Amino acid sequence: MSTVATETEQSIEELMQGLGDAAQAAARELAYTPTEKKNDALLAAAQAIRSQTADILAANARDMSSAEQRGLSSALLDRLKLNEDRIEGMATGLEQIAALDDPVGAVMDEWSRPNKLQISRVRVPLGVIGIIYESRPNVTADAGALCLKAGNAAILRGGTEAYHSNHAIMACLADGLAAADLPAAAIQLVPTQDREAVGAMLRMAGTIDVVVPRGGRSLVERVQNEARVPVFAHLDGICHTYIHAAADLERARAIALNAKMRRTGICGAMETLIIDRDVLSTHLTPIVDDLVEAGCELRGDAEACAADSRIKPASEEDWGTEYLDAILSVKTVAGIDEAMDHIAAYGSAHTEAIVTEDAEAAARFLNEVGSAILMHNTSTQFADGGEFGMGAEIGISTGKLHARGPVGVEQLTSFKYVVRGEGQVRP
Amino acid sequence: MSTVATETEQSIEELMQGLGDAAQAAARELAYTPTEKKNDALLAAAQAIRSQTADILAANARDMSSAEQRGLSSALLDRLKLNEDRIEGMATGLEQIAALDDPVGAVMDEWSRPNKLQISRVRVPLGVIGIIYESRPNVTADAGALCLKAGNAAILRGGTEAYHSNHAIMACLADGLAAADLPAAAIQLVPTQDREAVGAMLRMAGTIDVVVPRGGRSLVERVQNEARVPVFAHLDGICHTYIHAAADLERARAIALNAKMRRTGICGAMETLIIDRDVLSTHLTPIVDDLVEAGCELRGDAEACAADSRIKPASEEDWGTEYLDAILSVKTVAGIDEAMDHIAAYGSAHTEAIVTEDAEAAARFLNEVGSAILMHNTSTQFADGGEFGMGAEIGISTGKLHARGPVGVEQLTSFKYVVRGEGQVRP
Repeated sequence: MSTVATETEQSIEELMQGLGDAAQAAARELAYTPTEKKNDALLAAAQAIRSQTADILAANARDMSSAEQRGLSSALLDRLKLNEDRIEGMATGLEQIAALDDPVGAVMDEWSRPNKLQISRVRVPLGVIGIIYESRPNVTADAGALCLKAGNAAILRGGTEAYHSNHAIMACLADGLAAADLPAAAIQLVPTQDREAVGAMLRMAGTIDVVVPRGGRSLVERVQNEARVPVFAHLDGICHTYIHAAADLERARAIALNAKMRRTGICGAMETLIIDRDVLSTHLTPIVDDLVEAGCELRGDAEACAADSRIKPASEEDWGTEYLDAILSVKTVAGIDEAMDHIAAYGSAHTEAIVTEDAEAAARFLNEVGSAILMHNTSTQFADGGEFGMGAEIGISTGKLHARGPVGVEQLTSFKYVVRGEGQVRP
Repeated sequence: MSTVATETEQSIEELMQGLGDAAQAAARELAYTPTEKKNDALLAAAQAIRSQTADILAANARDMSSAEQRGLSSALLDRLKLNEDRIEGMATGLEQIAALDDPVGAVMDEWSRPNKLQISRVRVPLGVIGIIYESRPNVTADAGALCLKAGNAAILRGGTEAYHSNHAIMACLADGLAAADLPAAAIQLVPTQDREAVGAMLRMAGTIDVVVPRGGRSLVERVQNEARVPVFAHLDGICHTYIHAAADLERARAIALNAKMRRTGICGAMETLIIDRDVLSTHLTPIVDDLVEAGCELRGDAEACAADSRIKPASEEDWGTEYLDAILSVKTVAGIDEAMDHIAAYGSAHTEAIVTEDAEAAARFLNEVGSAILMHNTSTQFADGGEFGMGAEIGISTGKLHARGPVGVEQLTSFKYVVRGEGQVRP
């Protein structure tokens, strides 16, 4: 390694440690900042976004122009693009987060001991949260605001292609913080686009309490592999819908069509349909009718292909693939045990649904499948913090620790124990 | 690296992965094993421990004899030593864990949505828990039982010096599992003493869900540094007791003496006394009287030394030292802000107490200090799962994620969302 590279890396480590130290100092203050002050900052930031719409659009135009010059895909350009509607959406989003209940300080549980000690468990912020994201500039506002509402300091590291847009949005958040007299380091945007800054964040155990990656599989995979800091994330959303032998056909059709085709690119979209052999001849073709009409490609095992010629043979790889597209794999099983075995072998512990009128089968499925979200007679596309009534979410976690399922404002908190005595000593 | 070394390492990786795969299969079954069956296994294991007392004592005698030959310290020999009382204590411990409420399946929260979806959050086991411990053979029974009660599979890696004792105790746990017809892999003892087995456990992300180290600072530090798997642990317990200007003197004396001297070797023992300058002349000497009489050495800042000649000068290192011994550092402050700054700078986020009759000062301290456990007018030695009424604990965590404070049977669980519908699809 050359001396120059070493110096650059060191200075990025130092830069990031400086952000981290400032974030920690801010977090200590935010931990006991009253709700109103945090809301004032959010509402002032929303106003700043509205009044600085022209600046944000100009910054975004610079990003769009370099992205077009670099020949980025139209999907990426669409994610990067801001317009007045999308900017108003950011402002409204901040106001919605201001309207959420403040989780901090809530007493989660309290009890007293025979020796009269009063013990309570109280919600506190997590501390410092790092967000690593890609091309969507709105994440700057959403993620910064959610962290702030839960009393956390945020270190935001957006994508290079959204550099100017993110800075313009960050300026509005900074205005909001200043208006409420909150520390500027409560929300910080990493000022360098050097990729090493991401590596530095992932090594900042003891300074950053948790990292949330927002983006595609390769970003999440890098973060999960490299992080020495806890991560809230899901790598894949290989969601299954299991059409049980006692499924009502009309429900099965509506649920399968919605779970696959409402939006194919979200993590809660169904990727594999599992169907009981007993209803293969009655249920499969009507379901396939709807899906094919909606433009879906189907890949199945030998029995599924034999039952409906529109299904093409699936490879072993298909069962473990998150298509995020209008493609569905179809697996035939002998019954619920085989269905659950398939999910255990190929699933990603995100969301699985059973369609059945048999309460006992539903109870077994909901009880025995180990994924973060289990559903009965409904669409996996409901796997979403907003749909769960949790308000805005920063992502969905398939990890088993701390935050599981939708990660909203409450999931961005920790807790502490408060013990009140009157001079008790331990015998 | 020689070919031989590579082969050895590979075979240990393979051995450990084999244990991990078996544990995962067992965990899938344990996740929905009824409470009674788990309790039957625990009660049968308790009986097996009683009936195999002679075998356990013989195995322990072999361990003690090699430990003595190797010249291990008397403290370590004491931790390793089993006798009939300690063996009966293990059996009773298993029965107490059987008597705890089963956390699995408990509905933590439930609500319904405007679209009539019924959502609930249900406790589930974490999965596979790795325990890495040192010389105390009773951890084999305690940790295995706590994991089993919470529906988890356990992989136990005890200290080399307790090899035969651990295997004799494991045989009793295996008898208990067999009696209740539970999978043998529900509790597994790592069969090799190769240190590489620990490294392999720490890398088994995706197989082991969480690792709990039980032992001294060097073990915990190694685990925290090397683990690619989440860890529940505390590195240090640098606990503070702050004698506020409005402290009642008699309470302050009793609490300080108890917090330091009841047992000096536990993580909840006070290591630093912080005292307000305003009460230095009235409160310090009586507190020091008690401590010196009980055999405590004192090290303080210049003001504390000037106030009481029995206090010797502290070095900078003292403020960050967990003595685990009859030594106390004494810090003088101008008031609550300086006290909280000192705790933020030198504390380990474990347990801190304030002694004061001023409700406002107490409220500020409990609210603003960020440690896992905050106390008012009581002894830090109460920082313990049993004293909190949580039953047996596997340790105390100072991490902010998932399990914080005492880690008991409930903290060894995760949760999942269950969504019940009647055919709803997402618009």
